[in-house]
Amino acid sequence: MPASNEAVRAVVERYVALVATGTADQIVDLYADGATVEDPVGSEPLTTREAIHAFYATLEGLEQETRLLDARVVAGEAVFAFEVRTKAGDQTYVLAPFDVMTFDDDARITSMRAYWGEADMRLA
Amino acid sequence: MPASNEAVRAVVERYVALVATGTADQIVDLYADGATVEDPVGSEPLTTREAIHAFYATLEGLEQETRLLDARVVAGEAVFAFEVRTKAGDQTYVLAPFDVMTFDDDARITSMRAYWGEADMRLA
Repeated sequence: MPASNEAVRAVVERYVALVATGTADQIVDLYADGATVEDPVGSEPLTTREAIHAFYATLEGLEQETRLLDARVVAGEAVFAFEVRTKAGDQTYVLAPFDVMTFDDDARITSMRAYWGEADMRLA
Repeated sequence: MPASNEAVRAVVERYVALVATGTADQIVDLYADGATVEDPVGSEPLTTREAIHAFYATLEGLEQETRLLDARVVAGEAVFAFEVRTKAGDQTYVLAPFDVMTFDDDARITSMRAYWGEADMRLA
């Protein structure tokens, strides 16, 4: 049975929160074994736990805030709009991706694809 | 070479406009041969031109307005949030799906998956 919409939504909310304040270990824990990450869409997908961990490890040192803007959850899948604000010195960069995620029956993420381009990044 | 972001965005805008005021013929013209439609996500995908035409034909008689709310276009793919307002007597129903579309090199739609559930439909 696919994970419930409530369980999927809870993982989406936790994911967005952890992108701001979590460790790579915590984020990778949300992923199922064999999961894939394509961020941004069009880049080479990451297919190993090590590669996914290294990807999120690059966020650990950054001063970031995130906000979930809107989400649709159906049939064990989710698409959601969120915002990442990253401080770099006196400036704050805002990136606003749409992420598409699939989940296994235990609501672990089996794939993540992030839709964004340069046009979706701006100075606050 | 994948379709340009501009070409993909133009098709997304035309699609959203045609859902309100177009014919099934016009909408199906946006789709590539062999395209698939899964609306909502979790339902049996439509895999023939005839089935896709019949799906959009059900919209032809309705009094509808649509609005593209936000879109991300990257690498020949798009995800977008839009709103469909349908008048039924004195009442107006608002459905707000997130659609994910892939495109061929000529910016024809090769797949559409619509993320929405009952929770995403409301009375205006």
